[in-house]
Amino acid sequence: MAKTNAGNFFEDFTVGQVIEHATPRTVTEGDRALYGALYPTRFALPSSAEFAASVGLRGAPVEELIAFHIGFGKTVPDISLNAVANLGYAECRFLEPVVAGDTLTTKSEVIGLKQNSNGRTGVVHVRSTATNQRDEVAVEWVRWVMVHKRDASAPAPETVVPELAQVVDVADLVVPEGLDFRDYDFTAAGEPHRFDDYEVGEKIDHVDGVTLTDAEHMMATRLWQNTAKVHFNTEARPDGKRLIYGGHIISMARALSFNGLANAQLIAAINAGAHASPAFAGDTVYAWSEVLDKAETSAPGVGALRLRLVATRGRDESMTLRGEDGKYAPDVLLDLDLWALVPR
Amino acid sequence: MAKTNAGNFFEDFTVGQVIEHATPRTVTEGDRALYGALYPTRFALPSSAEFAASVGLRGAPVEELIAFHIGFGKTVPDISLNAVANLGYAECRFLEPVVAGDTLTTKSEVIGLKQNSNGRTGVVHVRSTATNQRDEVAVEWVRWVMVHKRDASAPAPETVVPELAQVVDVADLVVPEGLDFRDYDFTAAGEPHRFDDYEVGEKIDHVDGVTLTDAEHMMATRLWQNTAKVHFNTEARPDGKRLIYGGHIISMARALSFNGLANAQLIAAINAGAHASPAFAGDTVYAWSEVLDKAETSAPGVGALRLRLVATRGRDESMTLRGEDGKYAPDVLLDLDLWALVPR
Amino acid sequence: MAKTNAGNFFEDFTVGQVIEHATPRTVTEGDRALYGALYPTRFALPSSAEFAASVGLRGAPVEELIAFHIGFGKTVPDISLNAVANLGYAECRFLEPVVAGDTLTTKSEVIGLKQNSNGRTGVVHVRSTATNQRDEVAVEWVRWVMVHKRDASAPAPETVVPELAQVVDVADLVVPEGLDFRDYDFTAAGEPHRFDDYEVGEKIDHVDGVTLTDAEHMMATRLWQNTAKVHFNTEARPDGKRLIYGGHIISMARALSFNGLANAQLIAAINAGAHASPAFAGDTVYAWSEVLDKAETSAPGVGALRLRLVATRGRDESMTLRGEDGKYAPDVLLDLDLWALVPR
Repeated sequence: MAKTNAGNFFEDFTVGQVIEHATPRTVTEGDRALYGALYPTRFALPSSAEFAASVGLRGAPVEELIAFHIGFGKTVPDISLNAVANLGYAECRFLEPVVAGDTLTTKSEVIGLKQNSNGRTGVVHVRSTATNQRDEVAVEWVRWVMVHKRDASAPAPETVVPELAQVVDVADLVVPEGLDFRDYDFTAAGEPHRFDDYEVGEKIDHVDGVTLTDAEHMMATRLWQNTAKVHFNTEARPDGKRLIYGGHIISMARALSFNGLANAQLIAAINAGAHASPAFAGDTVYAWSEVLDKAETSAPGVGALRLRLVATRGRDESMTLRGEDGKYAPDVLLDLDLWALVPR
Repeated sequence: MAKTNAGNFFEDFTVGQVIEHATPRTVTEGDRALYGALYPTRFALPSSAEFAASVGLRGAPVEELIAFHIGFGKTVPDISLNAVANLGYAECRFLEPVVAGDTLTTKSEVIGLKQNSNGRTGVVHVRSTATNQRDEVAVEWVRWVMVHKRDASAPAPETVVPELAQVVDVADLVVPEGLDFRDYDFTAAGEPHRFDDYEVGEKIDHVDGVTLTDAEHMMATRLWQNTAKVHFNTEARPDGKRLIYGGHIISMARALSFNGLANAQLIAAINAGAHASPAFAGDTVYAWSEVLDKAETSAPGVGALRLRLVATRGRDESMTLRGEDGKYAPDVLLDLDLWALVPR
Repeated sequence: MAKTNAGNFFEDFTVGQVIEHATPRTVTEGDRALYGALYPTRFALPSSAEFAASVGLRGAPVEELIAFHIGFGKTVPDISLNAVANLGYAECRFLEPVVAGDTLTTKSEVIGLKQNSNGRTGVVHVRSTATNQRDEVAVEWVRWVMVHKRDASAPAPETVVPELAQVVDVADLVVPEGLDFRDYDFTAAGEPHRFDDYEVGEKIDHVDGVTLTDAEHMMATRLWQNTAKVHFNTEARPDGKRLIYGGHIISMARALSFNGLANAQLIAAINAGAHASPAFAGDTVYAWSEVLDKAETSAPGVGALRLRLVATRGRDESMTLRGEDGKYAPDVLLDLDLWALVPR
């Protein structure tokens, strides 16, 4: 019996199938420290247990993206080991803060299948959840990936394309229990800008750039137990480069966005996301944001900003997302649409 | 008085000498996180406190190799600062799981001395133990190293070559107190293969490869407070390369072996080990295993597999250990013989 | 309203101004582990909770430089984002040990201003304090930086140059509460040299060298939330190099000084410091020390050594600080003057 995991191919998936992913993972203060070493994050809430307590939270939550990356990493051996590309995200919500000591377990349900016209690949949609040791869902999300077929002559499954929300409805955003921004300390947080200071349509150039290294993105990707070989092995691609995990760019952009969005303390949801271009060591990543929408929440003093967060290779002060042809500008790495919680 | 440590030379050692090594070291959750960032490890037991509890363990042990590397690192300033080569390991047993908060202290006894015929070097055998704050031995091992003489004209000591077991006897393996694999969760662990699924003589190509970087091996080696200068200083070797600590390759191979040996949750013993060839940044490490033996243990549901774990530079799908001349194949980096505990 | 932080320029500072810096930061065991992965530190006290307890300390303090770097990092966005150079340190004292779980908050008072004769820059002196969650000052220090003017035609402020102690007076050194070196374990610490073994004027070549990498210095600098862009962005300097944070060299030199000063367990004060030359990836850092003074303290068994700690690019066995012209020798990177606590 072959002992190693060859991963699933397109024809191995069926709509409705539920996959329980391996490797439960306990989050530790070591993860928080490494996250801070790998990304230039300065958001006061995950940085300071005292700040977290001052806004009503129990424990000291780690950044939401730590939970996302851990959850995502677990799905890789079953969902995307034979993927051509990670195509998109939707309906990602952060439902329960994660603190050191929590253990996350991930499972996925296949909710869509569509074979491509070339007959050699297909698109798989999965809805995944990462659950803590109290069976509370910490984060849930949908992603879709293009996966190789094992056998091009295998019959195509019935096409099922799930209906997904373009944007997580404000009514569906979950604010962490106890969160209260009425006595928010803007000095400790680092910027004075509150909900009312941001306008829909406003763009913010986050100014700072970070040049990527192979050691750092490999350490980050391993930390989440993401095993996709293109990230680690120079023999896995013809150009001898290590492709950087898309989530590394997400976290880098989020951290860079502190400069201008220091009060966007928590991510409540990711509405959509696309990795527009691959990133490699030596690239210098910058970020800019656009305010897409604003909404109130039921929590005291807490507003929600819908933000487009864009990562680019090299700084683009013009903050151009797409060219005249409607395609992403060539140096756009990431286009992420999220809801963040800010003080009102 | 010279203040710096020049290390011991061959003629400084005497059989029966006991050396208490410096720098007690408290293990933390930070070590676990860094280990996971540096090696692609996914074994469920050290990854998840919940999984560890589900198989009867108190606390949440870190990987055995963390204890081994810490213990080994402590011995370097006294034993191998003037070493030509680390020649071998034997009789290494993991006796007590190590959890965050444990403090390890290491001592060694010189158990063998043999001057080489060239008169300029000699082989030193030491038996070392790393003990926790409750005076329990966490790990013990024998290693032998070739060490320079300070003065080639110094008289040779009486030759003493210890008798060492070729393999740790099954009766001498220590299973952690409480370990019970009867309700083992194969889904969480990631593979269905149990004790009965492995056959003596079976070889497993672990498929995945990792390309090494200088930053990562230096961070790993420092974490264990191993100070051998060839690992850190490009001026220490004529070729300007930093020689990678052999233990880095051990941990890399062990982590890669997850793919095919996901249920080999614990290392109970290391029977033998040889660093067949040096490794450097840019090398891509792969691993394969061979099942050498199988044995039952007295613990409920727990079997033991004796495994040869081989790390190679570049993938060798033929899994060839030695050439026709009996020597290691040129791209073999590591040949490790160990006992692992698996569910029956 | 511009959302991003442009930093303060010379004309934005006024003497007596107090700046509360952003981003309170909780210290964790992850910080200790990363510090040990990034620097070859082996001092027994911060390495071992058991050793710390054996010398009378509550909890297990992290290295003082962790508190210093965190405190320093907080000041960067307000004080030195537009700095030309970090010119010096004085009157730095470590007043309260920092343990995992402590949250540090930093503020600064402007104590000096002097416009340069070119009219385009000026020197700003600030006295900063990092305070824990019990409002105890953990570390305080003065530094002065040369900062750009926003507008060269802005009027010069009244010149105020603070009087600063050349050396922290022995009577002002604070020994951590409970510290008692009477039962000090020299074997665990790694060297036999005590207070009486060091002579004023004695120089110690610390022998070991470490070659720097970009990944490591960026991780260290981010860990302290220091955001100065020259450390991270190859597009920020004409030569495309990432300038290494001066604190990285301080910690590297301190760690290297273990070999010869293993019993200098605690830093009580930094009297002065200068970054004589910039450091870049590929440089190999060595260190040497000179004993400048010795003093008794009121704590049982505890003496103080005043040490000059010098980091160099490449090893300088002659331990030459300055050339005949009185300027720093070209490969001197750091000249640090500190008080360390050692067993008597």
